[in-house]
Amino acid sequence: MFRHQKELQFEVKVDRPDPQLAKHIQEVLGGQFGEMSVMMQYLFQGFNCRGNEKYKDMLMDIGTEEIGHVEMLCSLISQLLDGTSPDQQAEAAKDPTLAAIMGGVNPQHLIVSGLGATPKDSQGVPWNSGYIIASGNLLADMRANLNAESQGRLQVARIYHMTDDEGVRTTLRKMLARDRYHQYQWMAAIAELEEKNGVVVPASFPPEAEQEAQPHGLEFWNLSQGEESSTGLWATGSAPDGTGDFVYVTEPAAQGNIPDPKVPATEVHHDLDGKTSDK
Amino acid sequence: MFRHQKELQFEVKVDRPDPQLAKHIQEVLGGQFGEMSVMMQYLFQGFNCRGNEKYKDMLMDIGTEEIGHVEMLCSLISQLLDGTSPDQQAEAAKDPTLAAIMGGVNPQHLIVSGLGATPKDSQGVPWNSGYIIASGNLLADMRANLNAESQGRLQVARIYHMTDDEGVRTTLRKMLARDRYHQYQWMAAIAELEEKNGVVVPASFPPEAEQEAQPHGLEFWNLSQGEESSTGLWATGSAPDGTGDFVYVTEPAAQGNIPDPKVPATEVHHDLDGKTSDK
Amino acid sequence: MFRHQKELQFEVKVDRPDPQLAKHIQEVLGGQFGEMSVMMQYLFQGFNCRGNEKYKDMLMDIGTEEIGHVEMLCSLISQLLDGTSPDQQAEAAKDPTLAAIMGGVNPQHLIVSGLGATPKDSQGVPWNSGYIIASGNLLADMRANLNAESQGRLQVARIYHMTDDEGVRTTLRKMLARDRYHQYQWMAAIAELEEKNGVVVPASFPPEAEQEAQPHGLEFWNLSQGEESSTGLWATGSAPDGTGDFVYVTEPAAQGNIPDPKVPATEVHHDLDGKTSDK
Amino acid sequence: MFRHQKELQFEVKVDRPDPQLAKHIQEVLGGQFGEMSVMMQYLFQGFNCRGNEKYKDMLMDIGTEEIGHVEMLCSLISQLLDGTSPDQQAEAAKDPTLAAIMGGVNPQHLIVSGLGATPKDSQGVPWNSGYIIASGNLLADMRANLNAESQGRLQVARIYHMTDDEGVRTTLRKMLARDRYHQYQWMAAIAELEEKNGVVVPASFPPEAEQEAQPHGLEFWNLSQGEESSTGLWATGSAPDGTGDFVYVTEPAAQGNIPDPKVPATEVHHDLDGKTSDK
Amino acid sequence: MFRHQKELQFEVKVDRPDPQLAKHIQEVLGGQFGEMSVMMQYLFQGFNCRGNEKYKDMLMDIGTEEIGHVEMLCSLISQLLDGTSPDQQAEAAKDPTLAAIMGGVNPQHLIVSGLGATPKDSQGVPWNSGYIIASGNLLADMRANLNAESQGRLQVARIYHMTDDEGVRTTLRKMLARDRYHQYQWMAAIAELEEKNGVVVPASFPPEAEQEAQPHGLEFWNLSQGEESSTGLWATGSAPDGTGDFVYVTEPAAQGNIPDPKVPATEVHHDLDGKTSDK
Amino acid sequence: MFRHQKELQFEVKVDRPDPQLAKHIQEVLGGQFGEMSVMMQYLFQGFNCRGNEKYKDMLMDIGTEEIGHVEMLCSLISQLLDGTSPDQQAEAAKDPTLAAIMGGVNPQHLIVSGLGATPKDSQGVPWNSGYIIASGNLLADMRANLNAESQGRLQVARIYHMTDDEGVRTTLRKMLARDRYHQYQWMAAIAELEEKNGVVVPASFPPEAEQEAQPHGLEFWNLSQGEESSTGLWATGSAPDGTGDFVYVTEPAAQGNIPDPKVPATEVHHDLDGKTSDK
Repeated sequence: MFRHQKELQFEVKVDRPDPQLAKHIQEVLGGQFGEMSVMMQYLFQGFNCRGNEKYKDMLMDIGTEEIGHVEMLCSLISQLLDGTSPDQQAEAAKDPTLAAIMGGVNPQHLIVSGLGATPKDSQGVPWNSGYIIASGNLLADMRANLNAESQGRLQVARIYHMTDDEGVRTTLRKMLARDRYHQYQWMAAIAELEEKNGVVVPASFPPEAEQEAQPHGLEFWNLSQGEESSTGLWATGSAPDGTGDFVYVTEPAAQGNIPDPKVPATEVHHDLDGKTSDK
Repeated sequence: MFRHQKELQFEVKVDRPDPQLAKHIQEVLGGQFGEMSVMMQYLFQGFNCRGNEKYKDMLMDIGTEEIGHVEMLCSLISQLLDGTSPDQQAEAAKDPTLAAIMGGVNPQHLIVSGLGATPKDSQGVPWNSGYIIASGNLLADMRANLNAESQGRLQVARIYHMTDDEGVRTTLRKMLARDRYHQYQWMAAIAELEEKNGVVVPASFPPEAEQEAQPHGLEFWNLSQGEESSTGLWATGSAPDGTGDFVYVTEPAAQGNIPDPKVPATEVHHDLDGKTSDK
Repeated sequence: MFRHQKELQFEVKVDRPDPQLAKHIQEVLGGQFGEMSVMMQYLFQGFNCRGNEKYKDMLMDIGTEEIGHVEMLCSLISQLLDGTSPDQQAEAAKDPTLAAIMGGVNPQHLIVSGLGATPKDSQGVPWNSGYIIASGNLLADMRANLNAESQGRLQVARIYHMTDDEGVRTTLRKMLARDRYHQYQWMAAIAELEEKNGVVVPASFPPEAEQEAQPHGLEFWNLSQGEESSTGLWATGSAPDGTGDFVYVTEPAAQGNIPDPKVPATEVHHDLDGKTSDK
Repeated sequence: MFRHQKELQFEVKVDRPDPQLAKHIQEVLGGQFGEMSVMMQYLFQGFNCRGNEKYKDMLMDIGTEEIGHVEMLCSLISQLLDGTSPDQQAEAAKDPTLAAIMGGVNPQHLIVSGLGATPKDSQGVPWNSGYIIASGNLLADMRANLNAESQGRLQVARIYHMTDDEGVRTTLRKMLARDRYHQYQWMAAIAELEEKNGVVVPASFPPEAEQEAQPHGLEFWNLSQGEESSTGLWATGSAPDGTGDFVYVTEPAAQGNIPDPKVPATEVHHDLDGKTSDK
Repeated sequence: MFRHQKELQFEVKVDRPDPQLAKHIQEVLGGQFGEMSVMMQYLFQGFNCRGNEKYKDMLMDIGTEEIGHVEMLCSLISQLLDGTSPDQQAEAAKDPTLAAIMGGVNPQHLIVSGLGATPKDSQGVPWNSGYIIASGNLLADMRANLNAESQGRLQVARIYHMTDDEGVRTTLRKMLARDRYHQYQWMAAIAELEEKNGVVVPASFPPEAEQEAQPHGLEFWNLSQGEESSTGLWATGSAPDGTGDFVYVTEPAAQGNIPDPKVPATEVHHDLDGKTSDK
Repeated sequence: MFRHQKELQFEVKVDRPDPQLAKHIQEVLGGQFGEMSVMMQYLFQGFNCRGNEKYKDMLMDIGTEEIGHVEMLCSLISQLLDGTSPDQQAEAAKDPTLAAIMGGVNPQHLIVSGLGATPKDSQGVPWNSGYIIASGNLLADMRANLNAESQGRLQVARIYHMTDDEGVRTTLRKMLARDRYHQYQWMAAIAELEEKNGVVVPASFPPEAEQEAQPHGLEFWNLSQGEESSTGLWATGSAPDGTGDFVYVTEPAAQGNIPDPKVPATEVHHDLDGKTSDK
C-alpha cells in the first residue's frame, strides 16, 4: 500500500514560462525512457519479485521514488505552461516572434490537458507498456534498468542545453545527479548477481546442452564488408567467464540448408496449383 | 547495400508440425525482445553511427547477421505450421484432442498469413519500433544491446521447455549458444567503452555542474517500509568510478516544495472561478 | 443499412485558409474524444444493443448523425488547407512570417493526404478503437457517452479561441450547441436508467455478497497527506441510494497481508537458487 | 513524494492456482478500464490540478490508493500462476484435460514475465495512456472517473462468475464493494460541481454565442428509421438546467451546403488535370 | 449527412452459436483488412475527394455500403455469441469438451463487451487508422482499394472453411460474391484512370527530371543468390507504357559512396571524443 | 543469410543541412508507406513464400534491395541533421529566423537519436507491422506491393517540392525513377498471375458456391444521393473475366432482416431485466 506527502522530493521551479520547452520535457516524462517507464518498470519488477526479499525491497524503494519523479516533471511542465492560453495561437499569426513561440507549442497542452502535462512523449505518442520489462530474472532486469537510466540521463543532458533558464537547469541537474546514482545502483546490483550466477542470462540453462548442438558459439561473423570490427575486444578477447576465446571469422560460410516449404492445402487459398476448394 | 544467399545461417528443421508451438515462437520473432527488435536496433545503430568506423562495422556485421535470424525463425514457424488447414478448425469442435490443439492455434496463421510467420508477438500484437533504441551514444546503446540479448536468451530458454521436439530443440540450442556469445560481445564492447569514457552515461556532462546543485547524489532513499535493501552493494558500496561512497538514508525527508500552480486564463475553460470567456 | 445525402448537416465554411488551424482541428476529428470516437462508440453500442429497441434506435439515430459530423470536420479541414502546397515549405525558409505559418503545418497534410483530413489527432497519432467502449450495459455506456461529449465540447471550446476566423467560429459554435444538447441527451438517458436500476453499475450483482466480504465499503481513505479532502461531499455525505453514510478514515491502516510468492520451477529460468534445468 | 508499506491494502489469496483465470484477470489490471488506467488517470488529474486544493488532495488520496490496487492484482495473478511451468505446455499435447488448461494460458506469462503479471490486457495488448484523460476541467474529469469505475466494476462482476474459487471471489467482492464506493464518490463530486457551475461542460463558454449561430440546439434528429427513440426523456423532457424543452425532429432535413473543394496545386500530384509539375 | 434503416443489407443468420468462430470473424470486422478498414478508407477518400464528382459519388456509394457491412458482421458475431455466459468458463475446467470450446473464446467478448462484437481483430488488437489511406491521388487510392478487397476476400474464404454451419456459410458466400464485385469495381476504376493518366503514380512528375539523374531506371537488380527471378515478366518484358525494356542485372555493383558522417557538437553527448560540454 | 557492403546502392548527398526537411523525410523512411514498410513486406513475403521459387527469388531480390534503401535514407537524414545541436534550440527564442527553423525540428532528432534517423514517421509515430501484409496468396500480395510503391512514389514526389536543395533533389529523383520501375515490376507480376489464375483473389473458391447464395453479385448500389457514379466503367462495363455485366441499382432496397438479438444471461450483468445474479 502507498502513501503520498505533499512536498516534492526535490524543489522544482522555473524562472519563466516556456511552452516549447514544456513540449520537449515531455520526452523524459512519457517517452520510451521517461520517468513513467522507470516508475512502471521498477514497480512491476518489485510486485512480481519472487523469493528474494532484499531485491524486492530495493525495487520497491526505487519504484516508489520514481512515482515522485513523475510528479516532479508534471510540476515542471505545468510551470513552463503557466500563462499560455489558446487565444495566443490566434494572435501569433500576426507576429513572427510570437508565431515562432506558439508554433512550437504542443497543441494538446492547450486543447486536451488545459496546461497540464500529458502521459505522452515529445511528439505526442502515448506512453505504452511495450517500453518496459519485468522478466522474472533479476540479472536480465537489472541490465534493463541500467540501460533505462543510461538512456534517460543522456536525454536529460541533451535537454539541458536546450534552455538557459537557470531554474529549469537546476532541476535538471538534480535529475542528472540522481540518474548518475541510479546507474551506479544497477551496476552494483549487477555485480552482486554476476558474482553469484555468472555473467550469462539465464544461468540455469545447462551449458552442455548448447555445446553439443553448436560449435560456432564464440565466433564473430564478419558479414559486413571490411574488417575494422576485428580489432575490438569482442573479436580478440576471451569470454569473461573463461569459457573460451573469441574467434573472428573473416569469411563466414552459411551452415544451413535452403528452406523448401510445402504447398499448403487448397483451403488456404494460395492459388499456387489451380485447384478449387470443395464447396 | 545488402545481398542475400539462399542457405540459412544454420540448419532449421522440425520433427513434426506443431501449430501451438508456432504461436509461441512468434514471441522471439516479433515480440519486444524478438529477432526483429535486435535486427532493427543494430541496423539503425549502425546506419546512424558517426565517427567510429570500428563500431560501425561491428554493428553492421551483427545487424546483418540478425536479418538472417529473422529468416531462420520464419522458416521454423512455417515448418511448424505445415499441414495445418482452416477446415481442421471446424473439425476440432467434435474431438477434444484436436480441439485442444486447434484451440491454441494463432488464428491469424490461418486467416491472415496462410501458414506463414507474422511480424507480431505470441499474442498477435504487431511489432513496433518503440521497442528499439539508437541513441547516438555508444555506451548507452551497448547496454541496450546487452539487455536485449539477455531478455531474448531468457525467452528462448523458456520456450525450449515447451516442446520435446528434438528438431526444434536443436535449432533453439543454436540460438541459445549464439545469444550467449552476443551477451559476451556486448560485455566486451562495454568494457572497452567504460575503460575509455568512464562508467556513467553520458560522460560529457560536467560533473561539477551536478555537484553544485545536488548534495543527495549518492544516496539510496528507503521509501519502502523495511530495510532489507540496506544490505545490497548499492547501499554499502562505493561508486565504481571512485567518486564516493553510497549512503543509505533510512528515513528520507522530502527536500522540495509543495507545488502551487496558478489558475489559467478563462479561455482554457477550467471552470474554476465562474468566469465566462469573451465571445 | 445506411444512405448518404450530399448536403452536410450544417453549413461549413471558412473565411480564409489556415493550415495551422487545420492541424489543431484534427484533435476533435481523430483524437481520443474526437468525432470518430463518438461515431464509432455510438454505432457499436447500437449494433450490439440487445433487448431494448428504444435505446437501440436512439443510439442508431445519434451514431448516424455523428458519421455526418466526421464528414463536416473533413470539409472544414479541407477548406483550411485550400491553396497550401509543398513548395511553400521550401519558400518558407527565406521568410520568417511564412516560416512561422509553414512550420506549424502538419507535414502529413502535404505528404500523405494531399490536403485532406487524416484519421489522426493533432499530433499525428492514428485513431484507434482503444478509445471507445460498448459494454453491453446501458448505464455504464451512457456514462461513457456523457464523458465523451463533455471532453469533446471542452476541446472545441478551447480551439474556438485559437482562431478569429468568423467562418470557422460559426461552425464551431454549431458544434458547441450540438454538444450541449448531446450532454443533456445522455443526462436524460442516465436519469431514466438510474430511476429503473439504481445508481450503481452493474445493478445485478447481489449487494449482500459484497457486504459479507467487505466492511470498508463506504470509507474514504486519506492516503495523501493533508485533510483538505475531508470537506467534500464524498467524505461528509451519504450514498445517493441511501445504503449508508460515507466515512472519512483519517489514518487508514492496511488490512492485508505481506505477499509471499513462491519460487517457481527451474524451467522458468529465474536463477534464484543456482539450479540448472534438465537438458 | 510517495512511500510504500509492505502490507497490501486488503488481503489477497487464492484457493488454488488457475493460469487461465490469471489471463482473464489481466483485463482488470492492464485493460482499457483496469487498475492501471484509474491509477494513472487519478494521479495525472491530481498532479495537474490547479487552484483547488480540496479536489487535488482528494485526487491524490484515491490515486495513491489505486497504486495499491495494481499491487493487489499483481499479487492475485502471481498466486494464480503459482506452480505453472513451461514444460507443462509440452506435456499438454498428450492429455486433453491438461491441454484445455494450458491452451488457455497467456503464453507471455510463461515466456516473457516468468509467472508475473504483465502491464497488458487479457488479450496481451500493452496498456497505453490513450485510455486516460486529465483535462484540466474538474467536472469533465469527474465524469470520466465515474465512467471508468462503472466499466471497471462491470468487468470485475463478469470475471467473478468465471471462477468458483472462493479465495479469488472474496478478493473480487472486496473490489466490487470498493468500486461501488468509488462510483458514489464521483457522483458526490459531480453533484458538488454541477451545483456550482451548472451541468454543461465547460460552463465558461458564453451561451449567447451559441444561441446566435444555432437554432437547432435542443433537437433530437431522427436519422435512423423508426421512432422508438421518441419515447425517451431525451426527446420528451427538458434541459436539466431549464434552458428549454427538447424537440423530436421526426423528419430532419439537412441544413448545410454540398461541399465543393478546390483542385490543389500541381505540386500536390493529384493527377486530376493532366498537368505536370515544374522540374 | 447519413441516414439509417433498420433492415440489414443482406440477411444474417447462424444455425447455432459458436463463440470460437465469433473470435475468428473479428478478423474480418476489425483486422487490418476488415470491414472497418474499407468503410473508413472509402469514406475518407470520399470526404477528401476534390474536383471529381463522379469518383466522389462512387466512393460515397460504396463507403456508405460498407458501414452496413460492419453492421452485418456485428449481427453475425452477436448471434454466434448467443447464450455464452461467464460462468461457463468456470464450468469448463471440469469437462474437456466444454474446456476446448471455452478455451477458444475471446475473453473480451465475455468481460468487456458483454457478448457484443468489438472493434478489434481476431487477436484482440484494436483497429487503428494506420491501416488505411486516402492520399488525394485517385489511381494510388484505387490500387489501395483493390488490394484491400483482395486481402479481405482471401480472409473470408479461409474463414469459410473453419465452420460447417450452413447459416454462417450462406452469409459468408454473400460477402465473397460482394467482394468479387468490389474487386471488379476497383479494376474498372483503375482501367479508366490508367487510360487517362498513364500507369505510373503520380503522372504529374516530369519524366525528364528522373531521366537526367538516373540511368538505372528499368533495371532488375539480382541481389539474392540464384537467377530464378530472371524468367519473370519483370525481367524479360517492357514497361507497360512503352517507355523501355527491362534489364536484368545479374551481378549488380553498388553505385554509391561510403557514408562518412560527421562527429556532432559536444552538446549531443555522444562521448566520441572525450570532451565535456560547457556548464 | 545476408551480407553487407559499405557502399550505398546510389550516392546520397545534400548541399546543406536542413533539420526541418530531415523531419519530413522521416515519412518515407518510417511512415505507413516508407522504405521500412516495403523492406519488411517484401522480406516477409519472400521468407514465407511456398512452392514457387521464381517468385520467392524475386521477392528476396527486391526485399534485399530495400534494406539498402532504408540505409540510404538514414544517410540522407543524418546529413540533413549535420551541425544541428541542442543549444540552438535555446538560442532560437531570440531570433525569429532561427526560431522558425528550430521550431520545425523533430525534437527526438535532438533528444532521442542524437542526430540520427529514427524508425518513425514525420510526426514521430513509431513504425509498426500493422502496415504490412504477407498473405500467402501471390496475386493479393503483388497488389499490396503495387499499392505500396504507388503511395510511396507519390509521397516522394510531394517532398521533392518541399526543398530546392539540388543534392537532395538528385537523391529523390533516383528514388522516383526506382519507384517507377518497381510499379512496373509489380504490374508485370500481376499480369503473369492474372493470366494464370484469373483476376479475382482468391481463384480457388468455387464460383458456383457464391452464385447459389447471392444474386446481387454484379450490382453497384447507389447508396449516396446523386447518380454521378452511374457513368463510370464499374457501372456500365462488364466483369473483366467475362462473367457478366455490371448493373447499376439506382434505388437499392435492403434485402435483409431487422436483427433481433437475445437478452443474455444475468451473469453478463446487462441490467436489462431487473434480475440479480446468484452469489
